[in-house]
Amino acid sequence: MPAYRLDVAYDGSEFHGFARQPDVRTVQGEIEAALETILRVPVLTVGAGRTDAGVHARGQVVSFTVDDPVEVERLGRSLNRMLRPEIAVTAVGEAPDGFDARFSARSRVYRYQVLATPVHDPLRRHYSWHVPEPLDVDAMERAAVGFLGEHDFASFCRAAPGRSTVRTVLQSRWEVDGDLMVYEVEARAFCHQMVRSIVGFCVDAGRGRVDPGSVADVLASRDRAAARPIAPPQGLILWEVRYDRGPETAGQRSGA
Amino acid sequence: MPAYRLDVAYDGSEFHGFARQPDVRTVQGEIEAALETILRVPVLTVGAGRTDAGVHARGQVVSFTVDDPVEVERLGRSLNRMLRPEIAVTAVGEAPDGFDARFSARSRVYRYQVLATPVHDPLRRHYSWHVPEPLDVDAMERAAVGFLGEHDFASFCRAAPGRSTVRTVLQSRWEVDGDLMVYEVEARAFCHQMVRSIVGFCVDAGRGRVDPGSVADVLASRDRAAARPIAPPQGLILWEVRYDRGPETAGQRSGA
Repeated sequence: MPAYRLDVAYDGSEFHGFARQPDVRTVQGEIEAALETILRVPVLTVGAGRTDAGVHARGQVVSFTVDDPVEVERLGRSLNRMLRPEIAVTAVGEAPDGFDARFSARSRVYRYQVLATPVHDPLRRHYSWHVPEPLDVDAMERAAVGFLGEHDFASFCRAAPGRSTVRTVLQSRWEVDGDLMVYEVEARAFCHQMVRSIVGFCVDAGRGRVDPGSVADVLASRDRAAARPIAPPQGLILWEVRYDRGPETAGQRSGA
Repeated sequence: MPAYRLDVAYDGSEFHGFARQPDVRTVQGEIEAALETILRVPVLTVGAGRTDAGVHARGQVVSFTVDDPVEVERLGRSLNRMLRPEIAVTAVGEAPDGFDARFSARSRVYRYQVLATPVHDPLRRHYSWHVPEPLDVDAMERAAVGFLGEHDFASFCRAAPGRSTVRTVLQSRWEVDGDLMVYEVEARAFCHQMVRSIVGFCVDAGRGRVDPGSVADVLASRDRAAARPIAPPQGLILWEVRYDRGPETAGQRSGA
């Protein structure tokens, strides 16, 4: 059966997250409904990252298989007509045999945007967390480094009883871009609310409310209560999903 | 009577424009209601630019006078608590004697953002106009230059019978910023829908639908029908208002 890959961006503000759920509007639900309308068969998709309600994506990847080959350029145009303006299919392509957006992924990259200004900014409120207090970037960077490597992230994950919370963080750093402070983190996989928990911790380190050197202790405690309040969803963007083989995006850029 | 100046940013998406109107939600209406609640007297304000429904501002300026002096830093904080998240008061200060946000202004600067990508971008849709066709930047720049100087802009304004449509454009240029094309225009004053009409013309020049050298002829025709469809409101931002004297913004940065 031919397999296909969609590269997808979306504004998560008005969705109950990515993953399909009965009776509520989700990104995956919208994409599957559009695929069914266009292809006239029910289509089950797989997404690389299960983003929460309010979280955005620039580089989500979705895969699916169908019985009959589809014309990818036309499919991209049709999907965009139906899914705009909140969802965009930025590329569509045939995927290699056995490709699965979730299980084939080598790693996920997320970005989190903190707006570090005394006054809130109406034009950036949908895609950042406004933190009015002065932030110590050095402290935030020191905290970020503490998350690198393999750790049990139980303190930084929403509980999922019986499932491992051990994860490996490959990249974890803050960059200053004007008055935005951008956290970039890469891991093979994340547990639930892990990025927002890490950001909440780093920002509290930047505000002087927690010692940036205490990351190892908080990890070791394996206690969610030892962490800090999680950062709000609207600052978080699933930036990119990386795969071992195949191109960085699906082959065909889809038309508008 | 002491005069005050507010520097104001807002997301115009959900407002019926800046100027107060009965029975609908406007930026000026919200600011005056907040001032009345805080100062316990009715306050009439003057705004430097009457932005239309859906148009945003980064640097709107609002002035008002009151009988009794107010503590500006506290006023800024109170206003921001009441006006967030769609409106922000970025600075509050005492204004020079006789200061009037509208009549004291030397010029207004607007920016218009065109997103020039094949596929729409969900994360930038609130603050740009997505134009999927390839755009010829040179043609857009040549069109923009044609608007410089003093002209009768009747072809590029929504009719206001009996009122002059002669305006002087001091700056008119396109700049490319990644996949955004940003138009910046400065004039002492603008007539109604003038910036969006100019942008509509420039973009049609960029799409090859109109000759960029024809600006002078279209101006001379003084005929609205000779222009092009106007650009949508969400790409337009009142960027800055310039004054002959006094600081670039009100003296006190307001707290969050």
